[in-house]
Amino acid sequence: MWNQTKLTETLDIKFPIIQAGMAGGVTTSEIVASVSNAGALGSLGAGYMDPKEMQTLIQDIKQKTKHPFAVNVFVPETPKHNPEQIEKANKLLQPFLNDLAIKANDGEVPRVFEQQIDKIIEEQVPICSFTFGIPSKPVIDKLKEHHILLVGTATTVKEAILNEEAGMDAVVAQGSEAGGHRGTFDRPFENSMIGTMSLVPQTVDHVSIPVIAAGGIMDARGVIAALMLGAQGVQMGTAFVTSEESGAKKQHKEAITTSTEDATTVTTTFSGKPARGIDNQFIQEMRQHENILPDYPIQNTLTKGIRKAAAEQNKPHYMSLWAGQSPLLSQKTSATDLLLSIIKDTEVILTTFNNDS
Amino acid sequence: MWNQTKLTETLDIKFPIIQAGMAGGVTTSEIVASVSNAGALGSLGAGYMDPKEMQTLIQDIKQKTKHPFAVNVFVPETPKHNPEQIEKANKLLQPFLNDLAIKANDGEVPRVFEQQIDKIIEEQVPICSFTFGIPSKPVIDKLKEHHILLVGTATTVKEAILNEEAGMDAVVAQGSEAGGHRGTFDRPFENSMIGTMSLVPQTVDHVSIPVIAAGGIMDARGVIAALMLGAQGVQMGTAFVTSEESGAKKQHKEAITTSTEDATTVTTTFSGKPARGIDNQFIQEMRQHENILPDYPIQNTLTKGIRKAAAEQNKPHYMSLWAGQSPLLSQKTSATDLLLSIIKDTEVILTTFNNDS
Repeated sequence: MWNQTKLTETLDIKFPIIQAGMAGGVTTSEIVASVSNAGALGSLGAGYMDPKEMQTLIQDIKQKTKHPFAVNVFVPETPKHNPEQIEKANKLLQPFLNDLAIKANDGEVPRVFEQQIDKIIEEQVPICSFTFGIPSKPVIDKLKEHHILLVGTATTVKEAILNEEAGMDAVVAQGSEAGGHRGTFDRPFENSMIGTMSLVPQTVDHVSIPVIAAGGIMDARGVIAALMLGAQGVQMGTAFVTSEESGAKKQHKEAITTSTEDATTVTTTFSGKPARGIDNQFIQEMRQHENILPDYPIQNTLTKGIRKAAAEQNKPHYMSLWAGQSPLLSQKTSATDLLLSIIKDTEVILTTFNNDS
Repeated sequence: MWNQTKLTETLDIKFPIIQAGMAGGVTTSEIVASVSNAGALGSLGAGYMDPKEMQTLIQDIKQKTKHPFAVNVFVPETPKHNPEQIEKANKLLQPFLNDLAIKANDGEVPRVFEQQIDKIIEEQVPICSFTFGIPSKPVIDKLKEHHILLVGTATTVKEAILNEEAGMDAVVAQGSEAGGHRGTFDRPFENSMIGTMSLVPQTVDHVSIPVIAAGGIMDARGVIAALMLGAQGVQMGTAFVTSEESGAKKQHKEAITTSTEDATTVTTTFSGKPARGIDNQFIQEMRQHENILPDYPIQNTLTKGIRKAAAEQNKPHYMSLWAGQSPLLSQKTSATDLLLSIIKDTEVILTTFNNDS
């Protein structure tokens, strides 16, 4: 059967489909539980989240599903906190702050990672996934001691190999089509903008852990194509952003469902790290300053108020409208119905195919 | 059967695999005939070619195969011939010219397109494919009157629609993974860097002519994945560059077979149009001047001598080493053996899959 792979066995899920752990409030406890209850794997995107808030959400999810789910965390970096650079960045952001009538942020970023890991262990979360790198050996060892399965993110073959060497149980191969932040950690991101069609088979040939394809996959066609490339499962982000249970802002959902395949761009202007989203006025005006903006996560903190106020004041041209390159395949439906239709379509395509050949 | 699609019926070929019509001497009459004799579609890349030279090659191909083949031509543009800009560009190229001990080129570009079309009609070439745009209605009408099938190139959904509207019989959807020149003609190429996994299903949903997937496809996995995305066939370029019958320079073949998936970049430095190749010294040193270089095809003419002398003097760091993002899947074999193994592997994968499900 198409859905019985080493990945589904390892993660104890029925269908090899993972809802990406998108940060920024998209992954409500409802969407995570809906996806896991449908037999796929829901993920809480805890990236920037306060550890206590994260714990409450995990407890919510556990109330709503008895099936495995994942929590996604961001491997921390130690950014250079340069007050002069922050002042300069805030000056560049001033027109947006003015237009939204809000104050600048001081760029202080609380470190949450270690506490997040403790909460994940305390709550016995079945699966922990990582973005922006590989955690230290002590962190990996601690999670493994508690029988928590680990899933890493790679954007090159080398990053996938590093994930396997570090002891990950599976690795997401994130193609350049993917929406939101690039998981790149090993080299300049420009070199790591490799399309899913290229990245997946080359990765599969060089690691022995299950590879999860991500980037551009929105429907049954993408799921089967990814499996044919050698992936054991897929991770879908944008497809779930527009679902009813998603916590994405309504302007974000609307922007995706009305977008076209050529409307996205990769920008560091919102967070200091490259991410793919729908091009808009904020990105266009800040693009020329990309080289002088503070590193992630400082820039992310500086623009936090802008993004929030822009949503409240219905100014999507200042929002981070993360999206992959397949918006024409997006749907307004529930996450459950999306999954059910993908599973049904997958079976229809495969049956038709079997009968034909 | 997997190989019976509307595309194979239209083009009268046995397997839905097209060897891309790469310019620059890669597509010898041997490789075109080998591919067509194996039941796929060989293409002569006549892009920059003198019409007489093209005619001789077409006659060679017709001697070597009775099966359909294609000739690929470049839809011409009228570049601004600015002597001052050419002088400036040649000044920037001077260090390379000096190192190779060759003279600068005056940037005069003969217009070959109309004569190429006449020769294609005269030789009754079965299929004519286009890159860099859509030819004028009179050209299309003339080719159609002579029952020549037409295949266009698109890098966005909109470009595919424009191809269908112009009367193309099929369209290549060229994903961002693809090596060599981007076929983009409708907007800035940055917006048209869409991964194959995203581009193919979205294109299939918006045109009724057969879609041919290109970009990152090197083996049976890629062929099946493309078909599952809704493509009716694939076009492969890089996979054939390294084959024995290919006329690619030995340094070019060697660069691909020893490359990695993250080693390519998209550059306009060689030709004035964006193209994907293995990053090297020439690209790195000229990148900063990209904005002031003459348009295609003038820049292409200016660097012609450099590329030729670099190959002769074994200086691959000055050569245009066009390659897609899947070099780890490249093979040193004959084009015939490559095709036979892809066809065999495709059938093995599908049989295994059928038995499993």
